[in-house]
Amino acid sequence: MSEKKRILSGMRPTGPLHLGNLHGALANWVDMQDPYDCFFFIADWHALTSNYEDPSATTGYVEEMMIDWLSAGLDPEKSTLFVQSLVPEHAELFLYLSMITPVPWLERNPTYKDQIVQLDNKDLSTFGFLGYPVLQAADIIMYKANGVPVGVDQVPHVEITREIARRFNFLYGDVFPEPDAILTKTSKILGLDRRKMSKSYNNAIYLSDTPDEIAKKVSQMITDPQRMRRDDPGNPDICNVFEFHKIYSDKETWQAIDPQCRNAEIGCVECKKIMAKSLIEAMKPLHERRVHFKARPDRVREIIAFGSEKARTVAKKTMEEVRQAVKIRA
Amino acid sequence: MSEKKRILSGMRPTGPLHLGNLHGALANWVDMQDPYDCFFFIADWHALTSNYEDPSATTGYVEEMMIDWLSAGLDPEKSTLFVQSLVPEHAELFLYLSMITPVPWLERNPTYKDQIVQLDNKDLSTFGFLGYPVLQAADIIMYKANGVPVGVDQVPHVEITREIARRFNFLYGDVFPEPDAILTKTSKILGLDRRKMSKSYNNAIYLSDTPDEIAKKVSQMITDPQRMRRDDPGNPDICNVFEFHKIYSDKETWQAIDPQCRNAEIGCVECKKIMAKSLIEAMKPLHERRVHFKARPDRVREIIAFGSEKARTVAKKTMEEVRQAVKIRA
Repeated sequence: MSEKKRILSGMRPTGPLHLGNLHGALANWVDMQDPYDCFFFIADWHALTSNYEDPSATTGYVEEMMIDWLSAGLDPEKSTLFVQSLVPEHAELFLYLSMITPVPWLERNPTYKDQIVQLDNKDLSTFGFLGYPVLQAADIIMYKANGVPVGVDQVPHVEITREIARRFNFLYGDVFPEPDAILTKTSKILGLDRRKMSKSYNNAIYLSDTPDEIAKKVSQMITDPQRMRRDDPGNPDICNVFEFHKIYSDKETWQAIDPQCRNAEIGCVECKKIMAKSLIEAMKPLHERRVHFKARPDRVREIIAFGSEKARTVAKKTMEEVRQAVKIRA
Repeated sequence: MSEKKRILSGMRPTGPLHLGNLHGALANWVDMQDPYDCFFFIADWHALTSNYEDPSATTGYVEEMMIDWLSAGLDPEKSTLFVQSLVPEHAELFLYLSMITPVPWLERNPTYKDQIVQLDNKDLSTFGFLGYPVLQAADIIMYKANGVPVGVDQVPHVEITREIARRFNFLYGDVFPEPDAILTKTSKILGLDRRKMSKSYNNAIYLSDTPDEIAKKVSQMITDPQRMRRDDPGNPDICNVFEFHKIYSDKETWQAIDPQCRNAEIGCVECKKIMAKSLIEAMKPLHERRVHFKARPDRVREIIAFGSEKARTVAKKTMEEVRQAVKIRA
């Protein structure tokens, strides 16, 4: 038994990962691999809650997502990397937790209300969508995770998981620890058009983009909108390209660019070229791993099977305890 | 592949079975074993929907219920007799069907409304209780049952199962047949006190009652309440003991008793003794089988394991089709 604290997190396989995902979550996961006993999973069943009408659009992306993960530096020797639907015990625990979760807890869930509004073009009033915090609770407590790395907006989800775990323990005896939300500090990164980077806004740089694609996308980035001509002075404080510089270029470079931009000594085209070069350079190890795994689909499937089997061993043990606690087995 | 039509039905393991259960369902199941390919299951997960606070009160009864079934004449060589929780695929199908079932379908379910009212001492507003028609749909369509033997009050459950199956087929392609409700003709049998025979009314004659217990219970039965004294004339038309005579005594016997009762030529005590004898005689083969299986708990567990494995083989095949249809697997 490892002395490390256990954490768990997951992603829905809703498309190729971009820099927003990398800096918002994935890079953080990579850093957590040594200090924590990490379980990371591809939440393909969760993708069905909002995409049941066309699941192929989401669940078809499982292997590509694992390649993105491995490219970013997740290591199947360090962390348990698995696919939710390959551990069917999650469905069984979901069923048991369903029996004890009051409907009002789910109706009050702020994210439920938000998503119903946000995704108003979809018929989301399904039983499964209402219950996705129950499935999420099952995902987390199945592994008796001590912590869940989340952004601020996800804290209510961890709270409902804690409530469900507490209720289970109250009714049937102590089986589950209550997981803590671990607030992750993330570098905020915007899309090419300065909106939130998102697949649906078509403004993302993907982990799978080639250097040429990156260079092209960077060349289309919106800079300081006040700077109309080459000899207008610019303002790096409101320039998205400058934000990228601060992440990807070395300090010397971006500290030199700052006054040059303000004095119109450097144009946006040139500045972007420098940034693109830095970005491509920073992505190089990731791209190399991507090429490696992309050429080895069997190895990727093997990693998925290996991690899912590892997860399943833990899940089976938990379910034995659950069945005994609920007295469905002697 | 059998040419017979497949049917499926289940019972919650909420206590020992009584004559009401025998004539209301079980005897009918026994008769269906030859004309149909029968799947009968002990719905231990369903018992949790309304008894999650003290599951031991219900799920502890699984083996006793199987003994009741075998005593009544269900035959593990003819029918697939299984326990729901031993086929965890039911939980997985429940999850998939959850994703496509609109919440309003469940809220409109008349049995849901009824039970909320009837069981008003329990906190039933749980997610699992709201969703029990989804679990029931999973139970039924898992085996691609063509029919479900039910009483009139259960017809809405089969209807919602048909709707869910239809929605699945519409979204993902034809996987499931829509099962028909098979209305079962049942002999109505009342309890000792002329109310509905029920464990909770403490007015039941159990399949596990000994001949002595049966004789004692019959002696306490309420007859024609107008007949206060031995020499008052009685009215068999409103006498519960006479109803039992018509089921358990031969026609000659009860046709002779009818005028004797009306003319006060026979007293209730004597009449009950005759009926008790008939009832005990009718139950004899059932009691003999009960003694046989009660002495062989290993054999009962073997029958449960055998049937559940048989069911699971079918369930695994169905789930393969489901995962492919939903495109969660290539």
